[in-house]
Amino acid sequence: MKRLLIIGIGAGDPDHLTIQAAKAIAATDVFFVIGKGEEKDDLVRLRRDLIEEHGRPPYRIVEGRDPERDRTADAYAEAVEDWRARRAALYERMIDDSLADGETGAFLVWGDPGVYDSTLAILDRLPFPFEVVPGISAVSALTARHRTTLTSVARPVHITTGRRLAEEGPTADDMVVMLDARCAFSGLDDFHIYWGAYLGTDDEILVEGPVGEVGDRIRELRAEARARKGWIMDTYLLRRRA
Amino acid sequence: MKRLLIIGIGAGDPDHLTIQAAKAIAATDVFFVIGKGEEKDDLVRLRRDLIEEHGRPPYRIVEGRDPERDRTADAYAEAVEDWRARRAALYERMIDDSLADGETGAFLVWGDPGVYDSTLAILDRLPFPFEVVPGISAVSALTARHRTTLTSVARPVHITTGRRLAEEGPTADDMVVMLDARCAFSGLDDFHIYWGAYLGTDDEILVEGPVGEVGDRIRELRAEARARKGWIMDTYLLRRRA
Repeated sequence: MKRLLIIGIGAGDPDHLTIQAAKAIAATDVFFVIGKGEEKDDLVRLRRDLIEEHGRPPYRIVEGRDPERDRTADAYAEAVEDWRARRAALYERMIDDSLADGETGAFLVWGDPGVYDSTLAILDRLPFPFEVVPGISAVSALTARHRTTLTSVARPVHITTGRRLAEEGPTADDMVVMLDARCAFSGLDDFHIYWGAYLGTDDEILVEGPVGEVGDRIRELRAEARARKGWIMDTYLLRRRA
Repeated sequence: MKRLLIIGIGAGDPDHLTIQAAKAIAATDVFFVIGKGEEKDDLVRLRRDLIEEHGRPPYRIVEGRDPERDRTADAYAEAVEDWRARRAALYERMIDDSLADGETGAFLVWGDPGVYDSTLAILDRLPFPFEVVPGISAVSALTARHRTTLTSVARPVHITTGRRLAEEGPTADDMVVMLDARCAFSGLDDFHIYWGAYLGTDDEILVEGPVGEVGDRIRELRAEARARKGWIMDTYLLRRRA
């Protein structure tokens, strides 16, 4: 039997790691790491640091090469499905080749494995049992840094993507938007925005205010940071103004 | 200057605690604890255990008595508002009386302080600066234990309350329901339910399946557990069946 763990490691701050995750890393024989085409060096380094700090030698690190994803495809869901199938094949090969029976393999996932991450859906296709260790999501990190809550008293919150928000417009008074490369908040002047990039890291940027007042600044900061660092991870909460 | 921390301590498993939260507990001089009318002994004990394990003596524990909340009021939001105002007055008194300038006080919050918890909204009314330490929410704990994700590919998820679901019916294909004392999932036979109670504790109960098949069992388990333990904390994810 091969044992697999999907370990949420938090949103960027190494101290987001839970005790449960630290123990899981310590119990891991093989860490599976997928290199992205666009190298996010800081992220790779942060993950390595966590393994070095909490891993218990001897352990091995097995690297795979991420299949290319067709980001130009019109049919977004189909493109993702195709990419996931290829990634599942890659994972299966890596696990077959590198993890012996009785050993524990782990995938370290940014944020929380249950929030817009594909690792779980991919491992679900493979004939190996796995366990999930929850992590601090970017959503939790965002609201904590802005010292605000997802909703006012007992109101609903919608978590959605930039793509959806652009297509559908606002669907609730409180919305968390993830995976937004095109600043879909633009023009939503009825809303207050709590925006954060590189949450929990030394590069963290936080901006808060009415969209009409701070939207331009967020767009500029975002473009500048993305150009300078080569990548960006950002998230925001929109709240309809009273 | 008095420094205040709102520390998320996770959904029930002591190992949900993050390194950041453990450090925050170690930096705390005064822990503010509010006793509930209905004593949730297990929860009080778990919080005490965390303080004992991670606190750095000398520290003090200051207990307050929770103001009664009118749960029968028709106007839910107004009742909550009134209760929050009274609790804010209680907090201010406790902080004034028990925390000296230069000291750090902390409130330990179940789950994540940003998800349906009132501590932050209450401290927001007081003239003290505070910081928030994010925690593993019940939502993250639920999806991890069920080894599933909040949504399928890039779909939205709605987080709402039992009260809202009962009033509005389903508002999305993926919904997380919290604070539901009346099993508002009943009759939603188009949905698959991932239900969990006492997540992360020795009493954890997990049930998963089509609502039409497992709904009765959840209602029975819930009533039985609540009667036996005197309290229940449960959460669930509803996903529209394909």
